[in-house]
Amino acid sequence: MLIFYFAPGSSSMATHIALHEVGAPFEPRLLSFKNKEQQRPDYLALNPEGKVPALVIDGRVLTEVAATLYYLAKTYPAAGLWPRGGVEEEAQAISWMSFIAATVHPARRAGEEAWRAVFHLCEQRLAGQEWAVGRQYSLADIHLFRLFWRFVDALHPPASDYPGLMAHYERMMARPAVQQAIAIESAIGYEFPQGAGTR
Amino acid sequence: MLIFYFAPGSSSMATHIALHEVGAPFEPRLLSFKNKEQQRPDYLALNPEGKVPALVIDGRVLTEVAATLYYLAKTYPAAGLWPRGGVEEEAQAISWMSFIAATVHPARRAGEEAWRAVFHLCEQRLAGQEWAVGRQYSLADIHLFRLFWRFVDALHPPASDYPGLMAHYERMMARPAVQQAIAIESAIGYEFPQGAGTR
Repeated sequence: MLIFYFAPGSSSMATHIALHEVGAPFEPRLLSFKNKEQQRPDYLALNPEGKVPALVIDGRVLTEVAATLYYLAKTYPAAGLWPRGGVEEEAQAISWMSFIAATVHPARRAGEEAWRAVFHLCEQRLAGQEWAVGRQYSLADIHLFRLFWRFVDALHPPASDYPGLMAHYERMMARPAVQQAIAIESAIGYEFPQGAGTR
Repeated sequence: MLIFYFAPGSSSMATHIALHEVGAPFEPRLLSFKNKEQQRPDYLALNPEGKVPALVIDGRVLTEVAATLYYLAKTYPAAGLWPRGGVEEEAQAISWMSFIAATVHPARRAGEEAWRAVFHLCEQRLAGQEWAVGRQYSLADIHLFRLFWRFVDALHPPASDYPGLMAHYERMMARPAVQQAIAIESAIGYEFPQGAGTR
């Protein structure tokens, strides 16, 4: 059984999208950032970092967006979230997710200029391709989308600034799994944090 | 053919150790941080982020420590760097590497207190185990070691502060591949940067 800890609109949305993509049954557990529920002792006992997402697999905790996406992609191969072009393509997906977690994600807190700049790096890296890796939709697209979705929602950049990313965004928004995750999370209500607690 | 761009003592040391572990032939290309060679136009054309490591595989560029370790572990399976316990263990290795890149690595620049604190999280996560994932040495240990090695070199923490990590460090230092990478990089001379350019 999967238990999915999430906060609406936060980085856990990537895992949420993947859960809908693969069709895995899961029990959602909502954490309110506004009420600092990610700092509750019972949650910190589960994840000492006090961040989301956390996926509990038969009682064992898995954290970090990239790891939850990897687990779901490999456990439910029929959904086709894992690259199919061989080891080098797989490594490129890992590279995207590491770059997103370590460089793209922190840029938001470094200010608007840094945030805009890092998506120019993403635009360059995407290089006009339809999907992040190879010629197929994969887990890397989900991770990239969640970050760019947040950026679009906050800054409404003109499409001409990021033509490749905007086309990617539209492609993602057309997917039923993305629509489902967004519909559920927006119905609960986004709580975009200013400080720690999101990944 | 593999071309390996590195700067002595930087994050690229993890990739360097893995290259020695798997025994892959490679051509090393030294970048001097002191001379800002990672910002040279020819290197930026290769890696617009201006960071190391970069691994060039038959002309195609792969960046991010986690991705280079993944590529080497999967391309040279006989070296045993990829976890052997199944998808969940593999996901835990991805989780470690994402946590290291996104949370452990930036802590150094956040000051000494943040740097010490993040290794207490690592100590908790390691939970006295011999290796990061399952019961076997893996790519996650290489990534963790590089960060802790830098911390030990800079702050000389008492072993009692981080008993699990110090035992892990000693285990790593006993490995021939680690000794080789360190011998080569220290002979060239470490250039620990204050600002951007290292990962």
